[in-house]
Amino acid sequence: MQLKTGLFFLITFFSLCTFAAETDPLPSWREGPIKASIIEFVTTVTKQGSRDYVVPADRIATIDNDGTLWVEQPIYTQVIFMMGQSKNKDFQNLDKKMLEKIFIASSTNMSVDTYESSAKQWLATAINPRYKKHYTELVYQPMLEVIRYLEENQFAVYIVSGGGQEFVRAFSDTVYHIPVEHVIGSTGKTRYQYRDGHPELIKTDQPLFISDHAGKPEAINLFIGKKPIIAFGNSDGDKDMLEWTQSSPHKTLMLLVHHDDSVREYAYDTQSKVGTFSTELFSAAKQNHWQIISMKDDWKVIFPFELRADQSK
Amino acid sequence: MQLKTGLFFLITFFSLCTFAAETDPLPSWREGPIKASIIEFVTTVTKQGSRDYVVPADRIATIDNDGTLWVEQPIYTQVIFMMGQSKNKDFQNLDKKMLEKIFIASSTNMSVDTYESSAKQWLATAINPRYKKHYTELVYQPMLEVIRYLEENQFAVYIVSGGGQEFVRAFSDTVYHIPVEHVIGSTGKTRYQYRDGHPELIKTDQPLFISDHAGKPEAINLFIGKKPIIAFGNSDGDKDMLEWTQSSPHKTLMLLVHHDDSVREYAYDTQSKVGTFSTELFSAAKQNHWQIISMKDDWKVIFPFELRADQSK
Repeated sequence: MQLKTGLFFLITFFSLCTFAAETDPLPSWREGPIKASIIEFVTTVTKQGSRDYVVPADRIATIDNDGTLWVEQPIYTQVIFMMGQSKNKDFQNLDKKMLEKIFIASSTNMSVDTYESSAKQWLATAINPRYKKHYTELVYQPMLEVIRYLEENQFAVYIVSGGGQEFVRAFSDTVYHIPVEHVIGSTGKTRYQYRDGHPELIKTDQPLFISDHAGKPEAINLFIGKKPIIAFGNSDGDKDMLEWTQSSPHKTLMLLVHHDDSVREYAYDTQSKVGTFSTELFSAAKQNHWQIISMKDDWKVIFPFELRADQSK
Repeated sequence: MQLKTGLFFLITFFSLCTFAAETDPLPSWREGPIKASIIEFVTTVTKQGSRDYVVPADRIATIDNDGTLWVEQPIYTQVIFMMGQSKNKDFQNLDKKMLEKIFIASSTNMSVDTYESSAKQWLATAINPRYKKHYTELVYQPMLEVIRYLEENQFAVYIVSGGGQEFVRAFSDTVYHIPVEHVIGSTGKTRYQYRDGHPELIKTDQPLFISDHAGKPEAINLFIGKKPIIAFGNSDGDKDMLEWTQSSPHKTLMLLVHHDDSVREYAYDTQSKVGTFSTELFSAAKQNHWQIISMKDDWKVIFPFELRADQSK
C-alpha cells in the first residue's frame, strides 16, 4: 500500500515535469522562425554540456522599453506625463532638445521620492485616449512572456531605456516583474542633502547620462559590467546595444520589434520621428543577422487585456 | 519497517537543521555586542511573521571597500597599481586632486577590456611589502564571513567604494564572491566606438561621478534605487551612506570598522589622511547608535591566511 502511494507520487511528479516541459513558454507568439529562434537560443545556452552553455551569472538580457515593451506612439508616455494634463500640445513638433528641456524642467528640485510618487499616481489614473486603457496596460503580452521565460531560465533581465530611469522604475516591478535595480535609463545628477536628521536626494538640472544610441553600451558597462547575450530593441537608438551584445564571446541573439500593425497598434519605421527604424538599421539587421519581429505576423495578441477579453467571452 | 525508515530520515533531517542553525556564521568574530547585533539583525529581518520582517527583494546591504573589506594603509591599493612599479613615491603628500589626476592619466584612452586585463595582471603578481602577500590576500576574514552570511540570507550585497569601479570589479567576484554588477565605485565617462565590426568602450578623461561622501547615497539610488538596510563603512566618506541607510522605513543596522590594531594591521583614525575617522564621525556614530567595530577586540583573525597558517600547525 505504501509502495503504491510512493509510486503514485513518483508518476505524478514525472507527469508534471513532462507537462511543464511541453507547456509553450511563449503562447502569444505565432509559430515561425522568430519564436523558434528564441526558444532554440534559451534551450541551447541553458543546456549543461552544450558547447554553447552559458553559466547563469553570464545570462544577461537587455531590453529597450519604449516601442519594445510598450506603446510609444504618437509620443513617448513619459512626455505625456511630463506635460501633465495639457493634452492639446502639438507633440509632432517636439525635437530631442525640447524633450530634454521639458524633462529637466518637470523634475528639477524635486526629491527622488516625490518624483516617484507623482509618476506612480499619474500612471494609476491617466487614460490613453485611443485604447481607453491605463498606459501600463499598453505593454506587449508577447514581451511579458519573453521576460518571464528568460527569468525562469535564470537570466538577469535588464531594461535599458532611452527614457528616464526613475519614470520606468515607477512601474517596472508591478508591470514587468523587473526590479528597480535592473532598470537602466537616462538620468540626471541628484544632490544629497541632510537636514534635521532627514536625508533626501534632490533632482538637479544637470544631466548625468543619456542611455540611447552609444549611451546604451556605455550604460550597460556602467551598471552591469558584462555583455548581454540576448537583446531586444525596436529603433535606431538600440543599434549600438545590439552590436555590443553581438560582440560577446558567448552565443548571442539580437532582435528588433518592427511596428507594422496599423490595425492593432501602429505602423511606422523609416519616416517616424518617434522610434525611427531607419533604412540603415534595416541594413545593419540584415548584415548582422538580427531578427526582425513583425508585430502583425509574429504576435497573436498584442496586449494583456486581449487575453482577458478572450476569457470573458 | 518502512515507517521506521521514514522516522529515521525525519530525525536525521531535523538534526541537520538544528546543526545548521547552531553553526556559527561568523567564526572569526569574538563573542560580544557587535557580533550579537549582526546576528540578531539578520535573524529578525529574515524571520517570517516577525514585526521587522523584510522581503528578500528589499534586503540590500552596502559595504565600503578600502579600509572596510581590505587594507588601505599606507595608501589605497589602487594608487599603488596606478603608480606602477615606482615604489619610492612619497604617498603621504598626495592630495585628492592629485589622486584624481593620476587616476585619469593612468587609464585615459584605454579600452575597458584592456584596463580590466592590466588590473587583473597586476593584482595577480604585485606583493605587499609589509605582509609579503598579494593585495587580494589582505582582505578581512570577518567581513568575508559577513558577506557570505548575508548572501545565505538572501541579501543582495553591494560594494560601494570611493575607489574606481573597474579596479574593484577586477577582483570582486573571485575574492569577495560579489558579482561585478554589484560593484558601485567612482568612475569616468566611456566612449563607445565601432570600427570594422568591432565595438569598444574607451575610457575618457571626463569624470562621471565620485561615489564618496554624498556621492555614496547618490550612487546607491542610481544603481539600486532602494535604500540599504545594513551598511558597513570605516571613514568619513561613509557617513552619508550610513545616514541614508538609517532613513529606511525597515529595521536597519549601521556599522563602522575602527582601525585600532597596530600589531596585526594599522591603528589610525582622526589624524590619518587615508581613511580618516574624524571626531565628527565618532560623534555621529554615538548620536545615531552606529556600531563601532574594534578590529583589535572584535576580530579573532584579520586575514584569511591566518586561518590557513593555523591549520598547518
